[in-house]
Amino acid sequence: MPIPMRPDSLEIAILLYDGMTALDAIGPYEILSRLPNTAIKLVAKEPGLVVTDTRYLALNATDSLTDVPTPDVILLPGGSAGTMKITQDQAVLDWVRTAHANTQWTTAVCTGVFLLGASGLLTGVEATTHWASTADLAKYNARYRPARFVQSGKIISAAGVSAGIDMALYLASQLRGEQVAKAIQLAIEYDPEPPFDSGSLQKADQDTVQQSRKLLRSWFLDGFQKFFPDQAIPKL
Amino acid sequence: MPIPMRPDSLEIAILLYDGMTALDAIGPYEILSRLPNTAIKLVAKEPGLVVTDTRYLALNATDSLTDVPTPDVILLPGGSAGTMKITQDQAVLDWVRTAHANTQWTTAVCTGVFLLGASGLLTGVEATTHWASTADLAKYNARYRPARFVQSGKIISAAGVSAGIDMALYLASQLRGEQVAKAIQLAIEYDPEPPFDSGSLQKADQDTVQQSRKLLRSWFLDGFQKFFPDQAIPKL
Repeated sequence: MPIPMRPDSLEIAILLYDGMTALDAIGPYEILSRLPNTAIKLVAKEPGLVVTDTRYLALNATDSLTDVPTPDVILLPGGSAGTMKITQDQAVLDWVRTAHANTQWTTAVCTGVFLLGASGLLTGVEATTHWASTADLAKYNARYRPARFVQSGKIISAAGVSAGIDMALYLASQLRGEQVAKAIQLAIEYDPEPPFDSGSLQKADQDTVQQSRKLLRSWFLDGFQKFFPDQAIPKL
Repeated sequence: MPIPMRPDSLEIAILLYDGMTALDAIGPYEILSRLPNTAIKLVAKEPGLVVTDTRYLALNATDSLTDVPTPDVILLPGGSAGTMKITQDQAVLDWVRTAHANTQWTTAVCTGVFLLGASGLLTGVEATTHWASTADLAKYNARYRPARFVQSGKIISAAGVSAGIDMALYLASQLRGEQVAKAIQLAIEYDPEPPFDSGSLQKADQDTVQQSRKLLRSWFLDGFQKFFPDQAIPKL
């Protein structure tokens, strides 16, 4: 039995696609799906399973993009080579553009922001993204602002992967008030205590940065061979 | 083509079940699935989709419990009424017990620790869980230690939901060394900056605590009606 929605109900569409990073979407999902009087739509080009970038986990898209043309909020997760692939998909970019014209908030996590870029929506916008991809913002005429998340008009972009959790708490406060956001923060006991302090380029030592870049490159190349089987592997 | 595994390869089984909390599993997954020379098995009683506690998202289990009898590491996510249901499933408890006898590490997030309790594995163990459920540890003769995550022998338990991310970073360092764990922390840019400081019972104001308890109760009752349709709703 569907839960009856009040007139001020919200529809939040989270885009899923092959090669996306799971936590980019699921961090925010864990917060946004707990908002009162709010429906989450997990949308993809076609309903069904999408496989995340590290290959083991598949998430189920419940709706196609055309089923959810005018959500109140959209959230675009990032990824690696899979994101490069989907930013070339005109049907997806058309959906992003049309949806954005009607949203209250348009949000992106990590390299998901390049879906906005490829849709022509980043010109003159202040934004952030994963630390390894910040230089690419200039390609879309966006201005990089180093921050955990950046609001620019109704567009909110978050830094890499886990930054989506912080961004979603802010978004929750904008949608349903700070009191609700704080109650959800407590419900998911989001009082982080990372055992190491190497979560940003500024804090990590040089060996960690070097090894992290090497890992990112290997994951990208893995994905590239999957998503662009006919293309020569790019020099990085 | 399967990736060839070296002799020191690790198999990590993450349990999935209806009514689990998505982030309990996906936070750790995002870290553990990036470990070198490691295979993740997403196991459930039967392969296929499980629906998470907030109802929109389904995750795909690739293997049945009997397919993965002796993983090197197990990770048990929590949830609300769905966790209450699965802690009564003897086939699942049997798998937990047998797997635990052979693991290098047995780990649980949030109320997932009660799967260990119901399997008889918490007697005399120091553990933590979600702040709203700490009193239940005594039912299983465990000793509550207030911490983001607690190691007691080879059992590691994490506090509520998001605490699994911190725990998984520690686990990653134990499995593959601190340098690898730190490189993955940077790769997922885990440098948290929650916009509010209400993620623990100690830090949240009384209104937030009260509203959070109210939300937790409503989610539990929703789930209870789903998982125990023939039972009277418990007084809370």
